[in-house]
Amino acid sequence: MRYVSFRRPDGTASFGRLDGETIVELASDAVPSLKAALTDGSLPTLADGASFAAADVVLLPVIPDPAKILCVGLNYAEHVKETGREQKAHPAIFVRYADSLVADGQPMVKPAVTERFDYEGELAVVIGKPCHKVVAADAMAYVAGYSAFNDGSARDWQRHNIQFTPGKTFPGTGGFGPALVTPDEIADLGALSVQTRLNGDIVQHQPVSDMIWDIPTVIEYISAFTPLSPGDVIATGTPGGVGDKRTPPLYMKAGDKVEVDIGTIGTLTHRIIDEA
Amino acid sequence: MRYVSFRRPDGTASFGRLDGETIVELASDAVPSLKAALTDGSLPTLADGASFAAADVVLLPVIPDPAKILCVGLNYAEHVKETGREQKAHPAIFVRYADSLVADGQPMVKPAVTERFDYEGELAVVIGKPCHKVVAADAMAYVAGYSAFNDGSARDWQRHNIQFTPGKTFPGTGGFGPALVTPDEIADLGALSVQTRLNGDIVQHQPVSDMIWDIPTVIEYISAFTPLSPGDVIATGTPGGVGDKRTPPLYMKAGDKVEVDIGTIGTLTHRIIDEA
Repeated sequence: MRYVSFRRPDGTASFGRLDGETIVELASDAVPSLKAALTDGSLPTLADGASFAAADVVLLPVIPDPAKILCVGLNYAEHVKETGREQKAHPAIFVRYADSLVADGQPMVKPAVTERFDYEGELAVVIGKPCHKVVAADAMAYVAGYSAFNDGSARDWQRHNIQFTPGKTFPGTGGFGPALVTPDEIADLGALSVQTRLNGDIVQHQPVSDMIWDIPTVIEYISAFTPLSPGDVIATGTPGGVGDKRTPPLYMKAGDKVEVDIGTIGTLTHRIIDEA
Repeated sequence: MRYVSFRRPDGTASFGRLDGETIVELASDAVPSLKAALTDGSLPTLADGASFAAADVVLLPVIPDPAKILCVGLNYAEHVKETGREQKAHPAIFVRYADSLVADGQPMVKPAVTERFDYEGELAVVIGKPCHKVVAADAMAYVAGYSAFNDGSARDWQRHNIQFTPGKTFPGTGGFGPALVTPDEIADLGALSVQTRLNGDIVQHQPVSDMIWDIPTVIEYISAFTPLSPGDVIATGTPGGVGDKRTPPLYMKAGDKVEVDIGTIGTLTHRIIDEA
């Protein structure tokens, strides 16, 4: 199944199932959001509501309001190498806030205070059940599904000091979508590639199987230090090829089109605009 | 004024004003929490409810549910020096989650997976009004008040890789309290000292005026990259003297008593227990 969060033509927030080009609404007063449907476990059994042509609605971030968005840094060897950093025994984990998310089709916002606004295409994991201190062997039972993520980064702010969050959570910089794709839709997750395109040029392209710490290992590691809840998001790290490490550097500017294409999981597309 | 969040003797969460040894309840169905009272601006005008002897109630973290807890790293020169790190032009900012907070008088929990559980006494700033992109000269208008914070840190997890969050947000490690103290109660904030005591020994002791980036500057910097809301917390960094940088190192273990004493702002006290 593919689930999306969206605004109805009347402007109210909703969510539903994506059937081809049609969105079948699943929201109700009792279960108003995709996070709520994951939280109470009702998602697979909700009754179909109204149908909308997908083209007629505005998408919201897959989960508009995750309580936690944990980002894995340095999870592809090629990216570790291009940053000049040492590969460690554990992943780097930093945090972005929900108010930085932006839906598929909505503009990503280049902050006015940076000229070093960079893409990071990533596979996102959405947590489906509460979990704390799970072992890797059990971790996949807590995954609701996958989506694409663009961890838009103000490289100067990220490196103002030794912690990344200032450059990683500006409003409108975290692309997340288009849909939550359940694991049964994906025959071989590792065989999928994360491909990022900037104005049509392929700038990142690596198979998910190139991750240094695979998804079960990442869930084991994160859930060891913080409890996870339905709707929480793990952005699993970006492949090599970021713009900041190119010669010359390649940054995103107003008018650019950036896409994160993960095959079956979908393509997340944004235009870049300048902050108003 | 001094405000506290607490559990009534019947177990329900509430908040009120601390008048000496008495807590005057201010919560209502319409305004159930201190964060709600900051959010709707009603805090100064709420009607007095029931009174409780402070000794009879269990405190909650000052704000039990902040949307954002931003921690300033490396904000006292003596601490920068003991870490062997370079002083940068901007503060280091990392994040802790609300589910890691622990109230004054409740035990701080040493995670089972670390033997390097360290104290960090800090001054906490609580945001009182929504703010985004404020300049330092205006920043103090957005401050609801102050409290004490103990940024309990699993030093090994903090340094597993280059981002601190894994060692900084274990459940039960973020001491926060006892009360929200409004700015009018404090004649000279810079003259107050942050003193941390472990089993009665002074292990950290520096005036707030030693901060490299003062509170207005920190609010300007943080609000430049992320919007702040009432109830959000900024932990403003720890003085020199952390246990991990001592020879021999000094870590917290079950049975220890740790206090963060900031004079007029109050003393935050915890016993350490092992994770169950």
